[in-house]
Amino acid sequence: MDRKRYVILAEGFSGDPHYGKTARGVVRYRRDDVVALLDATRAGETQDGRPIVPTVDDALRFHPDTALVGVATQGGRFPPAWRELLKQCIRKGLHVESGLHEFLSEDAEMAELAARHGVELRDLRKPPPDLSVPSGENLRLPTRIVLTVGSECAIGKKTVALELDREARARGVRSQFVPTGQTGIVIAGWGIAVDAVVADFLAGAAERLVVEGHRRGGEDVLFVEGQGALVHPAYSGVTMGLLHGAAPHALVLCHLVGLTEVEGYPGQPIPSLRELVELYEHASLPARPARVEAIALNTRDLDERRAREAIAAAESETGVPAGDPVRFGAEKLVDAVVAPVHA
Amino acid sequence: MDRKRYVILAEGFSGDPHYGKTARGVVRYRRDDVVALLDATRAGETQDGRPIVPTVDDALRFHPDTALVGVATQGGRFPPAWRELLKQCIRKGLHVESGLHEFLSEDAEMAELAARHGVELRDLRKPPPDLSVPSGENLRLPTRIVLTVGSECAIGKKTVALELDREARARGVRSQFVPTGQTGIVIAGWGIAVDAVVADFLAGAAERLVVEGHRRGGEDVLFVEGQGALVHPAYSGVTMGLLHGAAPHALVLCHLVGLTEVEGYPGQPIPSLRELVELYEHASLPARPARVEAIALNTRDLDERRAREAIAAAESETGVPAGDPVRFGAEKLVDAVVAPVHA
Repeated sequence: MDRKRYVILAEGFSGDPHYGKTARGVVRYRRDDVVALLDATRAGETQDGRPIVPTVDDALRFHPDTALVGVATQGGRFPPAWRELLKQCIRKGLHVESGLHEFLSEDAEMAELAARHGVELRDLRKPPPDLSVPSGENLRLPTRIVLTVGSECAIGKKTVALELDREARARGVRSQFVPTGQTGIVIAGWGIAVDAVVADFLAGAAERLVVEGHRRGGEDVLFVEGQGALVHPAYSGVTMGLLHGAAPHALVLCHLVGLTEVEGYPGQPIPSLRELVELYEHASLPARPARVEAIALNTRDLDERRAREAIAAAESETGVPAGDPVRFGAEKLVDAVVAPVHA
Repeated sequence: MDRKRYVILAEGFSGDPHYGKTARGVVRYRRDDVVALLDATRAGETQDGRPIVPTVDDALRFHPDTALVGVATQGGRFPPAWRELLKQCIRKGLHVESGLHEFLSEDAEMAELAARHGVELRDLRKPPPDLSVPSGENLRLPTRIVLTVGSECAIGKKTVALELDREARARGVRSQFVPTGQTGIVIAGWGIAVDAVVADFLAGAAERLVVEGHRRGGEDVLFVEGQGALVHPAYSGVTMGLLHGAAPHALVLCHLVGLTEVEGYPGQPIPSLRELVELYEHASLPARPARVEAIALNTRDLDERRAREAIAAAESETGVPAGDPVRFGAEKLVDAVVAPVHA
């Protein structure tokens, strides 16, 4: 992967688990390529050992070459106040990478400014031009496909896939993380943001990603980054297209303990873990029925005793092995989902 | 709605229920605006009383003002041989309407030619530029929302919605057909092709359509045109986004009697009607659980006795009222799904 020197633009959101998830994910999994974060509301602090600065000029002391838009907005459009910040970065000679639905490279003013300053505008969510429907190759790949699915957005589906991939590699398994969203693309250096493709080509894009993941070395197992949730009123279509196009053999159900309602949709409930297991298994492709073989709980809001209680309760409710791979290690979940490849 | 004088381009496919479905749907439901069909393989025949001609020059005798691309291709791209035909139409001064994913208006050669001849290129599948995620208004509309869902593509979901709307109007019910695909858009004169929007905005587009259907007079009931199928390996994401964004109170399950496998996907089975009923009900939005309240069978491949037997068998398998609204009238299905509005 190309080495980069990122300054991550996360003004106001660097600590936010939802809207700042790009910033947090990239700092966590690509720390060597991050020189600073920009967030005036937390200036002087650090995040995962990286300095947080208040302005673009302050960031320049760390010699970044690329500014990464580190926030995700509902609907994926640019907050107006961001335009000035991005123009500052361009004028200072930084390339800009963005994962929002609104493409910088198609913004005439930004494109002209970038050309004048000799920098690139890279839209991570811009789909490849030649997508189509699935060919059926997803069902013929000689590898085991594991997809993370969830109860909500922004609860750790990407993180769980990355942690399981890391643990599998540590065991010598030929494993690949398959990125399906803008943060995963920055972390892995390849991928397609499936939520940004034309809806008819959702499953086709997902198939292409598992085919590429296999080609890149995932000969034993692929851990595919999940998107959205089947019960999410805005993003369930993306989840469904990914579920059928990636054609997983196994699912890992991700959940943030304590969530009961979809963020931004008051009155829209999140079902129980047992109901979610049933729904995902029921919705999987008839030609490739998938089972939930592990549950990954995000227990960040609990102390350790309560976290272990929540894990035990999830196992007892569903009969499926559960754990928090970030907090307590990914061994148990990898045992649950990868073992069958050697069977 | 604007009056038009369409020649429908359906070369090789005017009689094909799958790839010629745009041609057939528009001739059936907007016959007064169709002056001819172009299909050299059936020249000299008629369809629903409209002449079929072999060339653009022959079509001109009927004074069309607009050429409509009347085929749907897998993946929605232009077969190369079509480009010459479209250029002929443009040179003869016809506007061109197309519902394929490949946009004519973004094709430099076509756009230049159209400008030179003073005609418009209208891409029916081009989404509005300002789509976003749902606001929740779909759950607050004071009308009854009915969505047609199905076992496959191209089996009659649009036709069933149109027939139910027509029957409801004949009863004095304030009903609207809500178009969600290119053919429905031509028939109704408005709408969004939800399969062509950015995947994240699927549900948002569907919500916008039901809001507009209500505003256009669907104060008692909306019949929303379904898309794809939840068990379709390519298009299930679209189906799911539409199911959650349209937020129907009731579903009408459409099925072509005899289908057992998804077209184009050998080995991918279509489940039984009972399994489909369970799947659609299970997948409906937790905040708006929907029931399958009627089954619309397409019995075109059966004689009348076998058709009636198939309908009885569907009712006995599922416990849900069934009928073939095209062949035997829509009364029974409208009774089943609209009655509750007066309850």
